[in-house]
Amino acid sequence: MARIVMKFGGTSVADLDRIRAVATRVKRQVENGDEVAVVVSAMSGVTNQLVGYCQALSPLHDAREYDAVVATGEQVTSGLLAIALQTAGVDARSWSGWQIPLRTDGAHGKARIEHIEGETLIARMQAGQVPIVAGFQGIGPDNRLTTLGRGGSDTSAVALAAALKADRCDIYTDVDGIYTTDPRIVPRARRLEKIAYEEMLELASVGAKVLQTRSVELAMKERVRVQVLSSFDDGPAPYENETGALLPGTLVVDEDEIVEQEIVAGIAYSRDDAKVTVRKVPDRPGVAASVFGPLAEANVNVDMIVQSTGADGTTDMTFTVGKTDLARAIQVLEGAHGVIQYGELLTDPDVAKISVVGVGMRSHAGVANTMFRTLSDRSINIQVISTSEIKVSVLIAVEYTELAVRALHSAYGLDVG
Amino acid sequence: MARIVMKFGGTSVADLDRIRAVATRVKRQVENGDEVAVVVSAMSGVTNQLVGYCQALSPLHDAREYDAVVATGEQVTSGLLAIALQTAGVDARSWSGWQIPLRTDGAHGKARIEHIEGETLIARMQAGQVPIVAGFQGIGPDNRLTTLGRGGSDTSAVALAAALKADRCDIYTDVDGIYTTDPRIVPRARRLEKIAYEEMLELASVGAKVLQTRSVELAMKERVRVQVLSSFDDGPAPYENETGALLPGTLVVDEDEIVEQEIVAGIAYSRDDAKVTVRKVPDRPGVAASVFGPLAEANVNVDMIVQSTGADGTTDMTFTVGKTDLARAIQVLEGAHGVIQYGELLTDPDVAKISVVGVGMRSHAGVANTMFRTLSDRSINIQVISTSEIKVSVLIAVEYTELAVRALHSAYGLDVG
Repeated sequence: MARIVMKFGGTSVADLDRIRAVATRVKRQVENGDEVAVVVSAMSGVTNQLVGYCQALSPLHDAREYDAVVATGEQVTSGLLAIALQTAGVDARSWSGWQIPLRTDGAHGKARIEHIEGETLIARMQAGQVPIVAGFQGIGPDNRLTTLGRGGSDTSAVALAAALKADRCDIYTDVDGIYTTDPRIVPRARRLEKIAYEEMLELASVGAKVLQTRSVELAMKERVRVQVLSSFDDGPAPYENETGALLPGTLVVDEDEIVEQEIVAGIAYSRDDAKVTVRKVPDRPGVAASVFGPLAEANVNVDMIVQSTGADGTTDMTFTVGKTDLARAIQVLEGAHGVIQYGELLTDPDVAKISVVGVGMRSHAGVANTMFRTLSDRSINIQVISTSEIKVSVLIAVEYTELAVRALHSAYGLDVG
Repeated sequence: MARIVMKFGGTSVADLDRIRAVATRVKRQVENGDEVAVVVSAMSGVTNQLVGYCQALSPLHDAREYDAVVATGEQVTSGLLAIALQTAGVDARSWSGWQIPLRTDGAHGKARIEHIEGETLIARMQAGQVPIVAGFQGIGPDNRLTTLGRGGSDTSAVALAAALKADRCDIYTDVDGIYTTDPRIVPRARRLEKIAYEEMLELASVGAKVLQTRSVELAMKERVRVQVLSSFDDGPAPYENETGALLPGTLVVDEDEIVEQEIVAGIAYSRDDAKVTVRKVPDRPGVAASVFGPLAEANVNVDMIVQSTGADGTTDMTFTVGKTDLARAIQVLEGAHGVIQYGELLTDPDVAKISVVGVGMRSHAGVANTMFRTLSDRSINIQVISTSEIKVSVLIAVEYTELAVRALHSAYGLDVG
């Protein structure tokens, strides 16, 4: 017997047939002897429609009213799933965020969870009832509805799992787990049985968006074991096999739980960045601040940064910004030309960031070198390099994306079979 | 300056353009110097869709979950109208039933309002803010959402007007007032400037369904002055003219307020009834109970009842039931044949009930006689008669409906011009 929070996303509850299928799956978990709570998203398309209404009435709408409107999507799904479960003979009841209560701060539209009152729900679960919680929402200090930002239902589920002291949080989605890389690029990509929180965070932030980043951060902080599963797979009930047999999804856990640690967990890529080079900047103290200060003030996030010094007393600064921020970055830097006194401003939106991620890097040397050699062997030029404790990222020309990902996937021994 | 509750039904908020038009109308009322609160229904079609979801999952769904699902429709409209009003420069905020709170009993799906906490809303109105209240819903003793039954937003509006001590409750709908009869049958039907609560109740219950019956009962009990107006009429802001000039809608008020009292306010008709005759019942004490007891137990509502006694020691009982109840009524009476010992059971679904309504009848004789003579002059046979203090109803063959309504409308001097 375990206590499990099951979370179903929008495509998993897209229509009444899918909601019935979810009820069947929840029933199977209950019949397995587990104590179960469920978190649901809005039926797919509903949130977009409601957001569209608010936007159409005013692009600068009151975030408190936006929350009151948009939070209804999950309220509908929670009630419908409760009816479907009752019809299937399972005791269930819906809970809105304000009823639990799930308390958040007052940042309407992107609120953060502060406290979930878990006692009532735990008592209901122990009495055999399944709480169906409307995801993505809570109640703020002003007694009004708040929402957690897009994808917030994952965060709701993880926070609920922590508050209910659940053994596991199962996130049902439209993929069947986390892969070593994008299977559309590398058909021999392998589903990971387990992945460490830190690895998941690095993979998510560079493009493998299966789980909302905040939900993984929260899982890591609260030590909630998260399982990513497909809701479109009608196989046997997911279970966790302590002997290491293949799991039906991917378990996101503390790295201590991963016995057979691979050095590299996966290869991620992103085509969402643009490269900016500020050339021939006088090389004096404070020059970095003169470049990045104005960008920060304009809310432009800067990622990979490289500085190289020339022989003539000037320096070149190269960095990446989000593609959607590029126009703003150019505007800011041109406006600051008098202060920075650079010689030339070069930009290139046709770049890709390729990252090798793995907690095993901490104890194994040579991971970065394997990456550089592999790319060199394919004549792929590395434009920028950045590293963290568990990640090496390089910037390359965008047309080499697939070639680079495939080559690295093989080089680190991640291919299936 | 007056304090006014404005209520907008589903067709009045059917899409974003209509919601913007409602915002314009509310703004005009605010600019008139009035304190305004608004009650809204769900966008038209939304409630039906949500009800359909619940029905499809289970015809015997949990009414508490039905309420959680269906109450979202009004929540969406209230938030959207708040955004539209803010965009138009009017301070506004949405209120769900649980936030006010609007407390109801625990009869989920058909709850009755018990108490509305008005102080907070009054303070907001006095400070210049327009509360936008989600109609049709409240919070029950179990801290769960309740709904008031179909059309319940009218009742929400009247109850709110009472709680806020409003001078008037304006119900915006898709007709521009209450008419002396159905204008589709009598083109010369006249819009009533004023109508008494009791008359409105009789007209509503026999087919002129502009306002939900419960809302009129509540208005009468709480002495709330209700104005019925068209939301599709873009004329000047509605106002109440104390000199008796033509109002833009119909005011539903206490009969004392109606100075120039007509004897008859209107002619109503209904084709929703069926006639049942139980023939040759042994004429002994308790025979009525033996017929109507089993019907009541089966939840069949019986309306007009006539008993005539023959010479042979038997009696005939004729009455009407709702057409949708006819099959059940037949089943019940056939099942009770051994107890009632009637000779024959006759039914006729092809009947219409025509009613003449007016509080003036109390002090004027001859109203019923005018009705009988008018119908007789057109050779229309009266099958059943029933009367109340302010109403005379007759049952006739359905094919004479239009002829009878037109003839009576003329006979009582109700025609325009």
